[in-house]
Amino acid sequence: MNSKTINKPINKPSPLYVTSGEPAGIGPDICLDLAKRKGVRPIVVLADKALLQKRAEQLGIDVELMDYEGQDCVAEDGQLFVHHIPVNVSVVAGQLNLKNADYVIRQLDFAANMALQDTCAGIVTAPVQKSVINESGIAFSGHTEFFQEKAGVDRVVMMLATKSLRVALVTTHLPLRQVADAITTERLQQVTDILVADLQRKFHIAEPRILVCGLNPHAGEDGYLGDEEIRIINPVLKRYQQNGVNISLAMPADTLFNPEHLKNADAVLAMYHDQGLPVLKSQGFGEAVNITLGLPFIRTSVDHGTALDLAGTGRASSSSLMVATDLALQMASGDQTDNHC
Amino acid sequence: MNSKTINKPINKPSPLYVTSGEPAGIGPDICLDLAKRKGVRPIVVLADKALLQKRAEQLGIDVELMDYEGQDCVAEDGQLFVHHIPVNVSVVAGQLNLKNADYVIRQLDFAANMALQDTCAGIVTAPVQKSVINESGIAFSGHTEFFQEKAGVDRVVMMLATKSLRVALVTTHLPLRQVADAITTERLQQVTDILVADLQRKFHIAEPRILVCGLNPHAGEDGYLGDEEIRIINPVLKRYQQNGVNISLAMPADTLFNPEHLKNADAVLAMYHDQGLPVLKSQGFGEAVNITLGLPFIRTSVDHGTALDLAGTGRASSSSLMVATDLALQMASGDQTDNHC
Repeated sequence: MNSKTINKPINKPSPLYVTSGEPAGIGPDICLDLAKRKGVRPIVVLADKALLQKRAEQLGIDVELMDYEGQDCVAEDGQLFVHHIPVNVSVVAGQLNLKNADYVIRQLDFAANMALQDTCAGIVTAPVQKSVINESGIAFSGHTEFFQEKAGVDRVVMMLATKSLRVALVTTHLPLRQVADAITTERLQQVTDILVADLQRKFHIAEPRILVCGLNPHAGEDGYLGDEEIRIINPVLKRYQQNGVNISLAMPADTLFNPEHLKNADAVLAMYHDQGLPVLKSQGFGEAVNITLGLPFIRTSVDHGTALDLAGTGRASSSSLMVATDLALQMASGDQTDNHC
Repeated sequence: MNSKTINKPINKPSPLYVTSGEPAGIGPDICLDLAKRKGVRPIVVLADKALLQKRAEQLGIDVELMDYEGQDCVAEDGQLFVHHIPVNVSVVAGQLNLKNADYVIRQLDFAANMALQDTCAGIVTAPVQKSVINESGIAFSGHTEFFQEKAGVDRVVMMLATKSLRVALVTTHLPLRQVADAITTERLQQVTDILVADLQRKFHIAEPRILVCGLNPHAGEDGYLGDEEIRIINPVLKRYQQNGVNISLAMPADTLFNPEHLKNADAVLAMYHDQGLPVLKSQGFGEAVNITLGLPFIRTSVDHGTALDLAGTGRASSSSLMVATDLALQMASGDQTDNHC
């Protein structure tokens, strides 16, 4: 039942690319902190070099920006590899400019091409400002959709992870009244295929243990509170169980996140956004990483926005980018990610 | 905007009644542990005295059962006040018997009558077995509905509380596909009225601070992910704000439960069951108390079932009953419940 969309080797002694995102936001600021990062492979920021230099001076950060030309060594402390992607017009921190909208797209495009050519270990993304990209005339729904389209895969899965919990979602950014109809046999199978395959290939867990939330309160209470568990969810899950996958049937979401259950699980599969993410974010305050499963490469992301008002002020926290970078490095290196679940 | 259903004084130097619930379940077992409870008012178990005595012997518990005849003193350690309500036929732990179904109803009926006559401080309920009551020919949806009908109120609100969090629900045991249509202006106003009034009267918080979850992911993201926040929820909440109530507009549920937000809140109002309860139960593992708001008396409840297989074995935990009892005593005494939120 492994996904057919996962068909490339993912462990390569190649660089990790970090897109710096919206140039007027905190992306460049937090990327500069990567100069302090130790790792086992080059970390390369995709950004305009002059913009990074200017932002570093604005923030009083002493950093040596080095052109990345295929080195396989790790940068020294205080050095930062940069693959230069030029902005169109000069950037003022905090001020969006439609003229630089395609600069963000060029970062993503370069990163995706490298990943699809197997010439990078993975992609970490800093935040972008969707509105300014769309206003400039470029249709853009988000990073996830962009990479999905570039990779040509039918389905990707959003998973959030903290140090102690991973939660994948069957549906994501959907009005609540559309959720029940979106839980179909086909979608649940696609998502479960991807989740199982990527926990194996990207998280190096040979036999992942997955707990699944029901759609309805009390997982439908034997049909009394909704019948999707009986009609759709449990029949799909039973087939996985019959095929040897360590996956639960639909469980009541209000008791599933009990620590006693979670200690025996590698991931939780929630049916929708606000069923799974409040627990995760309440526990992993400021340290949640967004991971796109189902792509033929590793992609992690910060879990915050462009915070325009903080750009260039020195008040932006790079903690989410650091956790996202560490996780991508860990996934790429093939380490057992023992500190997760 | 205070609820008109809350119109009785609730602080009385009167006993707290604890219904022992299903006689074949763990209710009698856990009620026996109340003999160890210290308090400022009598705690009176509603049960068949011989049944309690037999269960105590079965468990090897040394307890002195005393008839409650209106004493206003507190029982000594090892003593337990009992208001005798006779079973119809002898009880075997773990074995349901249709002939005793109305025994449970008589406990609830007595407790509700005492509460409605202002002759008790409140009611704590041990678990019942709905199925056996209904199979016996008595229509019974649950404790909450029973007390609501007895009190003659249109709407009650389910709230769960741990030591650090209170979560009230706009909708409760409803299939997920029915939730969006159930979020109406009228229901949201009724629930908010009750929540504000009971946080004031029963929890003694003069100006409660309430955070409200949106219905949709990201609270609808300006209508992009659902419009109920714009059409229904925020207009209602704005009217409360204009009337001086310290209540938020609809907030994204995935970030609302961030500790930074919660430290400034007395309660969270969630739109539905699996939006609010997974966080609460994951944090308050085994110590969640269910509170029915909107009744003209205090009612708390354990948050578990009858656990027939544990009855009489000594393996049942009374921790949830103890927390529910402590909270009811605290509410009745008018203490500031500083250890909540």
